[in-house]
Amino acid sequence: MMAITIAVDCMGGDHGPVVTLPAVFDFLRCDKDCATILVGREDELRPLLGTAVAEFGERLRVHNASEVVEMDEPVASALRNKKDSSMRVAANLVKEGTADAAISAGNTGALMAISRFVLKTLPGIDRPAIASILPTVKGYTYVLDLGANVDCQPEHLLQFGIMGAMLASALDHKERPSVGLLNIGEEEIKGNEVVKRAAELLRDSGLNFYGNVEGNDIFKGTTDVVVCDGFVGNVVLKASEGLAQMITNSLKEEFSRNFLTKLGALMALPALRAFKRRYDHRRYNGASLLGLNGIVVKSHGSADALAFRTALERAAEAARQRLPEKIASRMANTMPAAA
Amino acid sequence: MMAITIAVDCMGGDHGPVVTLPAVFDFLRCDKDCATILVGREDELRPLLGTAVAEFGERLRVHNASEVVEMDEPVASALRNKKDSSMRVAANLVKEGTADAAISAGNTGALMAISRFVLKTLPGIDRPAIASILPTVKGYTYVLDLGANVDCQPEHLLQFGIMGAMLASALDHKERPSVGLLNIGEEEIKGNEVVKRAAELLRDSGLNFYGNVEGNDIFKGTTDVVVCDGFVGNVVLKASEGLAQMITNSLKEEFSRNFLTKLGALMALPALRAFKRRYDHRRYNGASLLGLNGIVVKSHGSADALAFRTALERAAEAARQRLPEKIASRMANTMPAAA
Repeated sequence: MMAITIAVDCMGGDHGPVVTLPAVFDFLRCDKDCATILVGREDELRPLLGTAVAEFGERLRVHNASEVVEMDEPVASALRNKKDSSMRVAANLVKEGTADAAISAGNTGALMAISRFVLKTLPGIDRPAIASILPTVKGYTYVLDLGANVDCQPEHLLQFGIMGAMLASALDHKERPSVGLLNIGEEEIKGNEVVKRAAELLRDSGLNFYGNVEGNDIFKGTTDVVVCDGFVGNVVLKASEGLAQMITNSLKEEFSRNFLTKLGALMALPALRAFKRRYDHRRYNGASLLGLNGIVVKSHGSADALAFRTALERAAEAARQRLPEKIASRMANTMPAAA
Repeated sequence: MMAITIAVDCMGGDHGPVVTLPAVFDFLRCDKDCATILVGREDELRPLLGTAVAEFGERLRVHNASEVVEMDEPVASALRNKKDSSMRVAANLVKEGTADAAISAGNTGALMAISRFVLKTLPGIDRPAIASILPTVKGYTYVLDLGANVDCQPEHLLQFGIMGAMLASALDHKERPSVGLLNIGEEEIKGNEVVKRAAELLRDSGLNFYGNVEGNDIFKGTTDVVVCDGFVGNVVLKASEGLAQMITNSLKEEFSRNFLTKLGALMALPALRAFKRRYDHRRYNGASLLGLNGIVVKSHGSADALAFRTALERAAEAARQRLPEKIASRMANTMPAAA
């Protein structure tokens, strides 16, 4: 099996190496065909490696990067002033072919801007997009864009559809993943003009286009992929996180109200645990920056080691499946039809 | 206290009179200062009234309407061909001053189109909007627009902000409800141009404008009112419904897995019931069609009697508070500043 090397921005995210290093070690223990390049301040990272150096040998390298992009740092500053940031160096390693994928839990905006600057977009892709999975009744659905593109043209939504389908196809080995276009069902509405035109493009694209889907279809798992502009996608993602948090918090609250409800919680523990496991957001961590000439995965900033490892696995699978090549080849087949 | 008369489209919704009549009776029993006009096919409605005629006397009248707008009927057909529909007759009763508010569980698009045609919009309001409440950690938040306006200009979002603030002020008796503008936080984004300009208008409006909020702020209850265009609002509303349903269903599933989990559920019943009550969607039923020259409330099509009664109460409170007059007067004060 082909060996996959992942460049890991070890400094990014809310926790830095405390989370990224244990995640990498776990990952290397399970994914024997993978190697990692730890990118960050070598003098900080080295002392934290311990027995890992001996355990993983050549599969664990360190690449020094003297700077760190802060979580709240303006994108322009990260891009212009931090040419030796761990994020940028990780992207460079992908660019020069030393690594097959880069991963970071840092500032999303900076990661997108840097990745785009370093790796460039694939032929035919105007704008890279951010895709992630949301849990559904049936499993999960890929949703994109989640915030990289606010004002989209129909052609962009078509490109998102193609990239999303290739992502689902690569990571889930689905032959022809179904693609839905997020719209609203209110009949009085003439409909958002961009979405209407995008539906036509998607219909002619040769993708397995399901047609329009509505907000509730995301969680019903009506389609494998849901396409929307980055404004809508970001709002839905954050609203869903907020709602899920509110519901689970109030469940906790009701169960800790008094002695009897606490006893009830104890008896209900197996069911509550299974419920919690089902929606454990750590199992859904790892958003793909799609449309770039290379693989970049964004972990949630607050990810713990388990969540970061999930994102590492996503990056490895995308690399194994040569996702950018798949998107580029699909785009090459689509462009004449779309033009 | 001023008597409030509500024109009730008894035929609309998935269930028609089976739900609307018991809801009306309950409502009249509790709200002694209210009267209702039951609008629909008199020969169908009369036999269902039973002892209610004697019980409520003059507070329960019937107004014949020979037609019914179907739930899936195209808006144009409902508007043009059904001039004696229960929905239209109810709106007419408000128009001519016989009723203070109209309510329907029928087809949203048709209700909006008919209400707009019959009642017209208030001075300064370009487009009516649909507002409803969503539960939050702190209580609930008014969100608008939920689907009446897909492509919005900054001025429309400003108008939604004013209407939402007046709604929260009228129904919750809040002096200066806070208004948030839904946006995304990704820093790399220049931001949706419409939203950026709307923020400026809202800042200058004299409203208690909080600034931008993100998707998760809706459920955090960061502001009393959240403003967005109808596309985003509709998607968020439906996605939230879908997610909440998925979570509660899987909770049920986990609790019914085996004998032990079922026993757990039994012990956990008080907490689970309190949890369920907290998010009972029937307590949030009743969307306001705002910006019209009259009060129109839309009940969920699948509402049961309890839910429909909640919507009736909302309509009555909006009438008591003379909501359209409040919006019109606020608009009159805002327009010079916005111009």
